[in-house]
Amino acid sequence: MPTLYDVAAIGNALVDVIAQASDAFLEAEGLVKGSMQLVDADYSAGLYGRMGQAVEASGGSACNTVAGVASLGGTGAHIGKVGRDALGEVFAHDLNAIGARFAGGVLKDATPTGRCLINVTPEGERTMCTFLGAAALLEPEDVQAEVIESAQTVFLEGYLFDPPPARQAFAKAAGLARAAGRLVAITLSDAFVIDRHREALLGFIDTQVDVLFANEGEITSLYRTATFDEAIDAVRGHAKIAALTRGEQGSVIVTGGEMHEIAAIPVQKVVDTTGAGDQYAAGFLFGLARGRSLSHCGQLGSMAASEVISHYGPRPQTSLKELAAKSGL
Amino acid sequence: MPTLYDVAAIGNALVDVIAQASDAFLEAEGLVKGSMQLVDADYSAGLYGRMGQAVEASGGSACNTVAGVASLGGTGAHIGKVGRDALGEVFAHDLNAIGARFAGGVLKDATPTGRCLINVTPEGERTMCTFLGAAALLEPEDVQAEVIESAQTVFLEGYLFDPPPARQAFAKAAGLARAAGRLVAITLSDAFVIDRHREALLGFIDTQVDVLFANEGEITSLYRTATFDEAIDAVRGHAKIAALTRGEQGSVIVTGGEMHEIAAIPVQKVVDTTGAGDQYAAGFLFGLARGRSLSHCGQLGSMAASEVISHYGPRPQTSLKELAAKSGL
Repeated sequence: MPTLYDVAAIGNALVDVIAQASDAFLEAEGLVKGSMQLVDADYSAGLYGRMGQAVEASGGSACNTVAGVASLGGTGAHIGKVGRDALGEVFAHDLNAIGARFAGGVLKDATPTGRCLINVTPEGERTMCTFLGAAALLEPEDVQAEVIESAQTVFLEGYLFDPPPARQAFAKAAGLARAAGRLVAITLSDAFVIDRHREALLGFIDTQVDVLFANEGEITSLYRTATFDEAIDAVRGHAKIAALTRGEQGSVIVTGGEMHEIAAIPVQKVVDTTGAGDQYAAGFLFGLARGRSLSHCGQLGSMAASEVISHYGPRPQTSLKELAAKSGL
Repeated sequence: MPTLYDVAAIGNALVDVIAQASDAFLEAEGLVKGSMQLVDADYSAGLYGRMGQAVEASGGSACNTVAGVASLGGTGAHIGKVGRDALGEVFAHDLNAIGARFAGGVLKDATPTGRCLINVTPEGERTMCTFLGAAALLEPEDVQAEVIESAQTVFLEGYLFDPPPARQAFAKAAGLARAAGRLVAITLSDAFVIDRHREALLGFIDTQVDVLFANEGEITSLYRTATFDEAIDAVRGHAKIAALTRGEQGSVIVTGGEMHEIAAIPVQKVVDTTGAGDQYAAGFLFGLARGRSLSHCGQLGSMAASEVISHYGPRPQTSLKELAAKSGL
């Protein structure tokens, strides 16, 4: 199968609803800063009613990564599920508009497109409540073999370990990719996902995963270690490549006996960290698909992350391709 | 009737769909840069399909002004019409969330909430194609006397001169306001609106309007003058107060024999001029409602406009109240 995509991502198809919020608001709502939790339709409607003026933008962790790959000049496809409504149209439009392909499904029933309510506190931290809606109904039939087999890397969003049919879709994609000699990458997404599915994730990483993305909180949670350094020791020999991000402390890439430390690129003002990890993955996976060294991949990741945290919203607002050229990457 | 609102605005209830675009895109689409044109549902759907990745945010010129008044610590109400759909919920939510009141109507039929497709070119200029949808179905019954009579100023959006039932709603509001001894303000909105309705607008301004907002292009178009200075001479004696904006050249406030020149407040980078005029009106009308001098009102307008052009989106992202305090206003 010829290569059509640098990255084919499987993840929740979500529209983000982004509002500014105070620490007091999070406390009054009983929300843990920086967390992502799944909520039902009623909770979502109630919280939305109390949130501030918001902006809506296509999101979904893995889909943000596809947008980043496209901004770097690469090609991407996204597999997810939307409802037959205005937000579903917005999601598909935005993928099309960046030259990527929406290879997922559209529900025929009345389940609405999923949404992620994001409260951004003044320091730029985001706290997310996700009503999955249609996204949770992703199922194995939505994964088309021709999409997986024509992608350099299949990128899986850890959030999909939650809904059982989506987890089956996930397993199907990983199986197809391995059979076709394609790379499998996964992002751990969230500490609570890890708590719910630690054993399943550890087994999956050992047997299926070439590239593991995690931030400091996630990797220490996965291996139940007290420190980041212990987590680095723990991950060796499990994923072939682990790209571990640490916010302003940059990232560490671990592979076999090697370790590459990559500096973060400082920004004038951190406005909104939404999408930082997604864009790091975009830079890294684009570099990998184009045969760059692991250090180079990490630098592309840092660059993409620095762009996205300097404005509201989870996707690049400037051409990452031009930014890479300017940065000598 | 006690005063409940600094400003009650009547305007199109629209959700903005904002995307970055090149000059070449505008040319290929046959769009005149900086213009606003009304389009039908089919044209809107076609253009949207060709536009780039977009962000959705509540808009509508007069409603942006209400949002600015709220950000300054004032009170506002908005009268407009939305459809019974997700975008209509977004519009009402965002008004509620800023502590303002949505005093308009919700349609019961299937007409969708209106949307304004905004293509922002690299220098920050916006070109708008508006599908009015439900907004165009505003009618006199939607204007509640108690809202108009309890507002210091009724602020009318010139765009509403287009749909006949909305223009009747507009006339009803102006009549109620004058009878209650309240101020009537109007913004000319757009040069094409003026072309279509010059005589009606001139008559309305002469007989009903206390405060007229217009930019340079609009005021010279209204009075068919070759220069801005000639337009200043022409406007004297028609509106009691005319607040005329000139982008980076600031604004001029004309009243009787007096004239106040107000400097623009320079910004580091003009990102998106969407909402500049709306926010100027917000600062000005808030100042007027609070008994400030005309110069002070103009300075509040300049300040509010400078905030909104330094980011994407037509509404303030920082507290204008705090900004005013910092600026000694």
